[in-house]
Amino acid sequence: MTPQGPILVINPNSSTGVTQGLVAALAPYALPGGPAFECIDIPTSPATIATSEDVARSGLALAEIARGRPDASAFIIACFSDPGLELLRSLVPQPVLGIQEAGILTAMARADRFGIIALSERSVARHLLRIRQMGVLDRMAGEVGLSGVSALDAGTCDKVLTETLEAGRGLVRQGAGAIVLGCAGFAPRRRRIEAELGVPVIDPVQAAAVIALGAVIA
Amino acid sequence: MTPQGPILVINPNSSTGVTQGLVAALAPYALPGGPAFECIDIPTSPATIATSEDVARSGLALAEIARGRPDASAFIIACFSDPGLELLRSLVPQPVLGIQEAGILTAMARADRFGIIALSERSVARHLLRIRQMGVLDRMAGEVGLSGVSALDAGTCDKVLTETLEAGRGLVRQGAGAIVLGCAGFAPRRRRIEAELGVPVIDPVQAAAVIALGAVIA
Amino acid sequence: MTPQGPILVINPNSSTGVTQGLVAALAPYALPGGPAFECIDIPTSPATIATSEDVARSGLALAEIARGRPDASAFIIACFSDPGLELLRSLVPQPVLGIQEAGILTAMARADRFGIIALSERSVARHLLRIRQMGVLDRMAGEVGLSGVSALDAGTCDKVLTETLEAGRGLVRQGAGAIVLGCAGFAPRRRRIEAELGVPVIDPVQAAAVIALGAVIA
Amino acid sequence: MTPQGPILVINPNSSTGVTQGLVAALAPYALPGGPAFECIDIPTSPATIATSEDVARSGLALAEIARGRPDASAFIIACFSDPGLELLRSLVPQPVLGIQEAGILTAMARADRFGIIALSERSVARHLLRIRQMGVLDRMAGEVGLSGVSALDAGTCDKVLTETLEAGRGLVRQGAGAIVLGCAGFAPRRRRIEAELGVPVIDPVQAAAVIALGAVIA
Amino acid sequence: MTPQGPILVINPNSSTGVTQGLVAALAPYALPGGPAFECIDIPTSPATIATSEDVARSGLALAEIARGRPDASAFIIACFSDPGLELLRSLVPQPVLGIQEAGILTAMARADRFGIIALSERSVARHLLRIRQMGVLDRMAGEVGLSGVSALDAGTCDKVLTETLEAGRGLVRQGAGAIVLGCAGFAPRRRRIEAELGVPVIDPVQAAAVIALGAVIA
Amino acid sequence: MTPQGPILVINPNSSTGVTQGLVAALAPYALPGGPAFECIDIPTSPATIATSEDVARSGLALAEIARGRPDASAFIIACFSDPGLELLRSLVPQPVLGIQEAGILTAMARADRFGIIALSERSVARHLLRIRQMGVLDRMAGEVGLSGVSALDAGTCDKVLTETLEAGRGLVRQGAGAIVLGCAGFAPRRRRIEAELGVPVIDPVQAAAVIALGAVIA
Repeated sequence: MTPQGPILVINPNSSTGVTQGLVAALAPYALPGGPAFECIDIPTSPATIATSEDVARSGLALAEIARGRPDASAFIIACFSDPGLELLRSLVPQPVLGIQEAGILTAMARADRFGIIALSERSVARHLLRIRQMGVLDRMAGEVGLSGVSALDAGTCDKVLTETLEAGRGLVRQGAGAIVLGCAGFAPRRRRIEAELGVPVIDPVQAAAVIALGAVIA
Repeated sequence: MTPQGPILVINPNSSTGVTQGLVAALAPYALPGGPAFECIDIPTSPATIATSEDVARSGLALAEIARGRPDASAFIIACFSDPGLELLRSLVPQPVLGIQEAGILTAMARADRFGIIALSERSVARHLLRIRQMGVLDRMAGEVGLSGVSALDAGTCDKVLTETLEAGRGLVRQGAGAIVLGCAGFAPRRRRIEAELGVPVIDPVQAAAVIALGAVIA
Repeated sequence: MTPQGPILVINPNSSTGVTQGLVAALAPYALPGGPAFECIDIPTSPATIATSEDVARSGLALAEIARGRPDASAFIIACFSDPGLELLRSLVPQPVLGIQEAGILTAMARADRFGIIALSERSVARHLLRIRQMGVLDRMAGEVGLSGVSALDAGTCDKVLTETLEAGRGLVRQGAGAIVLGCAGFAPRRRRIEAELGVPVIDPVQAAAVIALGAVIA
Repeated sequence: MTPQGPILVINPNSSTGVTQGLVAALAPYALPGGPAFECIDIPTSPATIATSEDVARSGLALAEIARGRPDASAFIIACFSDPGLELLRSLVPQPVLGIQEAGILTAMARADRFGIIALSERSVARHLLRIRQMGVLDRMAGEVGLSGVSALDAGTCDKVLTETLEAGRGLVRQGAGAIVLGCAGFAPRRRRIEAELGVPVIDPVQAAAVIALGAVIA
Repeated sequence: MTPQGPILVINPNSSTGVTQGLVAALAPYALPGGPAFECIDIPTSPATIATSEDVARSGLALAEIARGRPDASAFIIACFSDPGLELLRSLVPQPVLGIQEAGILTAMARADRFGIIALSERSVARHLLRIRQMGVLDRMAGEVGLSGVSALDAGTCDKVLTETLEAGRGLVRQGAGAIVLGCAGFAPRRRRIEAELGVPVIDPVQAAAVIALGAVIA
Repeated sequence: MTPQGPILVINPNSSTGVTQGLVAALAPYALPGGPAFECIDIPTSPATIATSEDVARSGLALAEIARGRPDASAFIIACFSDPGLELLRSLVPQPVLGIQEAGILTAMARADRFGIIALSERSVARHLLRIRQMGVLDRMAGEVGLSGVSALDAGTCDKVLTETLEAGRGLVRQGAGAIVLGCAGFAPRRRRIEAELGVPVIDPVQAAAVIALGAVIA
């Protein structure tokens, strides 16, 4: 294996707590001699990417970062709205993965129909646009928005966990055979949620990370 | 990380050459302390799974194997027709991945439209049934069947490589932004084909392998 | 009209009661001088094809039977999961019809949207895979699974009839303009259910039988 | 079996030659004691239903006829544009079948993808509207329009037969596994075309006739 | 700007009250020196186009009118079932717009998902056929039928307004980002409904009228 | 009619020539007493929005402008990639129209299948993403990219006109019943192209302009 640059995992919000969660979530996938997962955030961003404007601004910030990192072997956009995904692909030669795409596609590799748990109701319509664009609408069992929680709380707050489990149970009842966690911040909760729901639960950052490994190593 | 059983990669044909190719293709993804990739074939099978009957028979053979391996942490069905995929999922609690599904979905994580290179023209219609079933027809740029080559030759014969590159170039001209190699035997050629075509080339076994890592490790 | 071999109607379970129901259901369609409907079952099968494994095994058993009957003018696979449909088509030159396909397509010839009544909830997800594969998802109003009844009881048990009518009424309220009975065993109840629901009710074996007549006679 | 009124097969053009062809095509499906196939035409119509206006006018004429035949057990609209199909269904209680719908759906019961041979290029766009409305576009391999021939010539003219076979071969090359003859007049040629093309060839009137048998007999 | 003939807006029912509503609704769009909106009705028609037969008959009546008006610069079919749309397009060279098409497409230009309010439940299934034919089913949030009201009452009766607002609120809750009023008679209520619902509300006649302006002026 | 603020038509490139073309193209639609069409460009932008980065940057610039114009009655984003469309809708209360959406939907109101002429081949894949997102892929006959021309040349250069006509003829042969001009700069050529091709030709800015009139006037 040729030495390779890191897989740059960019959390486009400014929450260092979320970034630390990414580091922990990806640690188990570090191959000896393989690319490191380098996780960074964008200090000038808001703590949660919540609005369409946040998404648009972070797309350009991500482009700036990606252009400055010819050493990276791949990029992961660690925000569930996949900000800047097409943009980065048009700018840099390395593989670029979005966690919404990777999370949903990984769920589709595990079960026929997927459900999504989003941080808030207002993200649901925006996600729907992407899912229709992906051409995979017929595989979606449903999407549920939580009560408007932050990316950090998604992985750390007990009340949010309770809410998340309830949302997941509802999606399973609607026919979801796999659940996609709709934020990069959920990672610390994946195993717990999976154990409770009894169906595959996909952390979208981990999903993107292993696909990135497959892309850069051979 | 808890010690985990191997990820069992089942080549449902009897070609030990193909199985050795799988071992080589997956070696770079072995995580220290993580699950091993154990690659096996089915000595009583034909050398290439080519007909619908081969697919049906191998599905049941795979079920028999999967039921006998409660120690495995996951199963990969290393045949591009995904024989027995739903069957195994209904029988065993572990994650079960089919390489056609995993390969196509991984291509969809890399580019908007995918193309497929199959071993023979007669597989193309059978694959189409699966792609429509997957609900991802609108993402397919096309599928090209080679002149009826064996799984082993796919990864070892120079004449087949030439034919594969020509098929790949045609698919790129049709708009494919990523190419899925439609057989477990292509693995030794992936990097070469990727270098020649200039678009992501997906080895479906590697694609399934990293998704399996994501499923069993956390 | 040239003399023609029988249309072989294969009930892939072992319930002779179901087979007798088929004989009765198809008797009215016997054309003088035309092919007979020869109904058989598979004594080594379970009494109801319920699991994915039952489906896979019966597909191969059906292939064996079809290969041994060059005298037949057509084959009907009388199980609502259409086991072995593609397999048989790849093996024998005669027309091969699956009752799920034939039943759904016949409902689509009678009304815009169809509903399906299945024997159990656990079949519904398996049927969905086929309906998406058929590319007719946009025509489905819904599918309801009964409480896990046998193929024989579907056509003979009064309690099941009550349950069936309730399911049918629910589907009509959801917009179904025609109802497909999701098992070969329902035939004795078709007229009664049709009278009660007030919409076309399709017995899938009869649906396949008349399409078979159209295929072999001209 | 209760005595039943005839299945009224309405050729909405004025070609008695076409009507005689229908009589011959349906004779083999007459069940002893079952409903007769009564074939009629509309003397005030043009010899071929070719334009959108022909279609619209014949829809109303068909409605008039259907309303006047409470004795009929079912109606078949024997024109490939299915004029008046929804209208008749809204007006009379009997089953109403359109031969375009019945022909396409029957082809879908025989093979994965269908092709259509139309009388003229200008019908193709009109048919496409119906096929999209039917929600089965993903199953169509293609449609070819002949050089603008009459309904009568479709079944009687040797030059048209040659043209039809050429069209059919083109559709098979495009992946059609079954061919639908796109006019009620083709019936006399069905067996010949089927023998030449080597795939199932569907006469849409016969297709509708057997579905009608299934609807009225039980 | 060359002087141009009027845009002929044909209300295919006989309600002069509805026609007067059209005149009022279109007055604000009259460009100085541009084509006038000439609104007419069909005195021999019923007061509301409600049944499939009404739709079929009015299609032919519209064709008669359109053929007699070579002076018109465009035609608008002011009935939500778009009677005769394809027919008129095949007969006359001028632009022909249907208000169902124009209304739905305009809603799609304003928001991702649309809802429709129809005059009665029994129109909903007929509309669905058109929406599937238009290929835009994935953009529909839902359709609600009112309790069977007349075209005139849609724009003038207070009880109907209350019912309409309730239907609209239900559609917004189902995810509709824009509401299409499903009858030419609703025009006088558009602004009021828009103000109450807080989402774009499309009067389909106004929608067609401005598209007609775009077609005839340049 | 209440006095209303202008409909702000924002050309997101810096070509004042294109902006002047917009002024001329929209002049005929100015209603007396109605909102003016105020056409502006963005001097800091490139002369043609060609790359994904241009699209992303202009989306944010458009948002800035829209937020600063509470007096406007509606916004039109006069770039065929619809930069910032969802973003602006999330930020301002006024109607926001994108010319790609408006142009395609208007073509769909005129004919069953549309074709698109883009400035360059490299835009085609980006447009496809939007068309799939719009859920209208089944209505597209094709898209052809010109040889990489500027927005200004699209409406002023004779060589580009020749190329445009050739592209249009190809699309009509592929079944396009209406052609969408894929850039705001084409407006001066619309009538000429329409006359030559013999099918409706949609200038997307005019299409958006009249829909905007319909939105703000009642």
